[in-house]
Amino acid sequence: MSVMTEAIIGAGEGTASPGATGPGTQVLVPTYEGDYVLDEHLLLECGRTLAGVTLHYAVYGRLNAARDNAVLVCHALSGSAQVGSWWPEIFAPGAVLSLKQDFVICINMLGSCYGSTGPGSVDPETGAVYGPDFPLVSIRDNVRAQALLLDSMGIRRLRLVLGGSLGGMQALDWTIFSPERVERALIIAVAPVSAMGLALNHLQRLAIQHDPDWAEGHYLPQRPPRRGLALARQIGMLSYKSAALLDERFGRNPNRNGEDPWGLDDQGGGLIGGRFDIAGYLDHQGQRFIERFDANAYLAILRTMDTWDPLHGHSSPTEVFSRIRARLSFVGISSDWLFPPEAVRHFAHAIRAAGVQADYREMTSAHGHDAFLAEQAELVRLLQ
Amino acid sequence: MSVMTEAIIGAGEGTASPGATGPGTQVLVPTYEGDYVLDEHLLLECGRTLAGVTLHYAVYGRLNAARDNAVLVCHALSGSAQVGSWWPEIFAPGAVLSLKQDFVICINMLGSCYGSTGPGSVDPETGAVYGPDFPLVSIRDNVRAQALLLDSMGIRRLRLVLGGSLGGMQALDWTIFSPERVERALIIAVAPVSAMGLALNHLQRLAIQHDPDWAEGHYLPQRPPRRGLALARQIGMLSYKSAALLDERFGRNPNRNGEDPWGLDDQGGGLIGGRFDIAGYLDHQGQRFIERFDANAYLAILRTMDTWDPLHGHSSPTEVFSRIRARLSFVGISSDWLFPPEAVRHFAHAIRAAGVQADYREMTSAHGHDAFLAEQAELVRLLQ
Repeated sequence: MSVMTEAIIGAGEGTASPGATGPGTQVLVPTYEGDYVLDEHLLLECGRTLAGVTLHYAVYGRLNAARDNAVLVCHALSGSAQVGSWWPEIFAPGAVLSLKQDFVICINMLGSCYGSTGPGSVDPETGAVYGPDFPLVSIRDNVRAQALLLDSMGIRRLRLVLGGSLGGMQALDWTIFSPERVERALIIAVAPVSAMGLALNHLQRLAIQHDPDWAEGHYLPQRPPRRGLALARQIGMLSYKSAALLDERFGRNPNRNGEDPWGLDDQGGGLIGGRFDIAGYLDHQGQRFIERFDANAYLAILRTMDTWDPLHGHSSPTEVFSRIRARLSFVGISSDWLFPPEAVRHFAHAIRAAGVQADYREMTSAHGHDAFLAEQAELVRLLQ
Repeated sequence: MSVMTEAIIGAGEGTASPGATGPGTQVLVPTYEGDYVLDEHLLLECGRTLAGVTLHYAVYGRLNAARDNAVLVCHALSGSAQVGSWWPEIFAPGAVLSLKQDFVICINMLGSCYGSTGPGSVDPETGAVYGPDFPLVSIRDNVRAQALLLDSMGIRRLRLVLGGSLGGMQALDWTIFSPERVERALIIAVAPVSAMGLALNHLQRLAIQHDPDWAEGHYLPQRPPRRGLALARQIGMLSYKSAALLDERFGRNPNRNGEDPWGLDDQGGGLIGGRFDIAGYLDHQGQRFIERFDANAYLAILRTMDTWDPLHGHSSPTEVFSRIRARLSFVGISSDWLFPPEAVRHFAHAIRAAGVQADYREMTSAHGHDAFLAEQAELVRLLQ
């Protein structure tokens, strides 16, 4: 047993502290948060290896003596290991997870800028920051690295692995590539990225590449490609929201700061004009994002997302999906246009057709793809 | 009667020549194509005036002696006056327009780069190119200028005014602001731009503004903001296509030129990777577009589009729509997510509720917003 595992097993339950996610919700403080460095090189699917791989992770609750109460939560594109901060309501009493009974682990994805090895890390083999030379790390590569971390904790089997969007991709790959280690998986709002999704990701990528400050990925920390990353995030944001939600929230209102879209040229010339409210909102979201995220990390994870397709290189779905032993539950979101509910349902049915226990439920929400984060209480109700 | 009108009345029908729009279709050559310069200054809704306004236009067919066979076709964002080139199938025998019976006029929008006054024109009052100082020209301003051109031809009344997208906005404004001059209007795939539409236009605008070559709109003709305009067009393209169409055409295929999205770093680093087919397609579309369109013109027309709302500044729909005397026909496109069919139908119903004769039909197509251009034969069938 490692020092870290001792700390975890010895520690009490995650403590709750007042949070900022909404009335009645609380942000949970992890039992432990830290780094795990893999002993071995990680051989990636793309053929390259990563040395000295660090996984940053957070745990909540306590691992029981039998080590059979572990749950793995997988995060989405710009998420972090602190699942208690971004998904607190699934820990509510009677919800999906219980800090009294579960030992919840969340591991930052490789390629991210939240603690695990990514493009901003130093390559121990060269002593230089990876930057644009950071390789393609697949979802399956992530799962293999995560499994090594669980090995170090003495956890052989997960009661549940779950996630939405990119997190759902990881959850499914767990069931395919470590079938004997997963009892149940909950896969929310995801299917292999559609042509529209690939297109949206491509345009986000271009937005960053077009920023002269990107410097082909060799930008200086003090001069990152802010405008490009902000625009990428704004394109992404549109795909996470439904048109109905935007109409309801913003409509055709002028920006709430008083700009006038019909007005004379006080906002940078007659070609531009005052912003509508939705434009002000998107600009604000872009600004918030560049304060917390890194452009190369964004590019790395977009590529991880794009290339995920469990059937890639296989001739039949059965060949792949029949490996699964876990019981799967899929959730589609009624207003999601990035991963439309029909695509999620179709994907779930294809897996069930391979003899896997898989059910599909639909969450009714106007929030779009984001609903699994924006309407957590609704999600919990659906899952109960 | 002006010299131009004599030429038109004297000319024969539009001649057909083999075209490139598809099997069986022909591109029509205009009876006449030329410029009309307004005698008077154009006072714009925004409060500014434009001097020496030029309207570039094309006509097809022959104006009859009673001058009561005129039809006005209004073009969309990046269209031109040459409606016979971009909408040839509505001229097919038995289709919507007849070169034997109709005199068809199409006028390039103000703000465009296809011959009418726009940001690339010289302001006769200053002797300098307008550039970013080109003012907001509303749809209604366009209609007023177009009416002056029709006056010069001695045309008091239009048998029909029609258009899709921005063209439909012009068609409707004709019926509101020149009610006595329009008998029928055909308005396709349009309603006031939704919050999602405003958002998409905002991001297109940002893509151009972020290009350092844009130079706040003062770019040199030999160094336009190519990458920004290409990205803007690519964002727009996504909103013109349906997800189902992209899935069918491109799916998750690697780019047809042989790039490998899963491959090693032969395509600009591990963060970027080989493109998928949809990305190659979008890049190609972006490249094609920058060869034919101007960035400032694009910005000007985006603003024209965003600000169009016949009810803006009015307290009741009835106050505005009850002015209409024409019979209106609206068409929504089943797979259109930029102007969803429900929005078009809802808009048509609101107008009908004001006592206007207005019907609504839905075109079933997988093509998305573009269907009125991409599936002209289908559109013609619906309208027959």
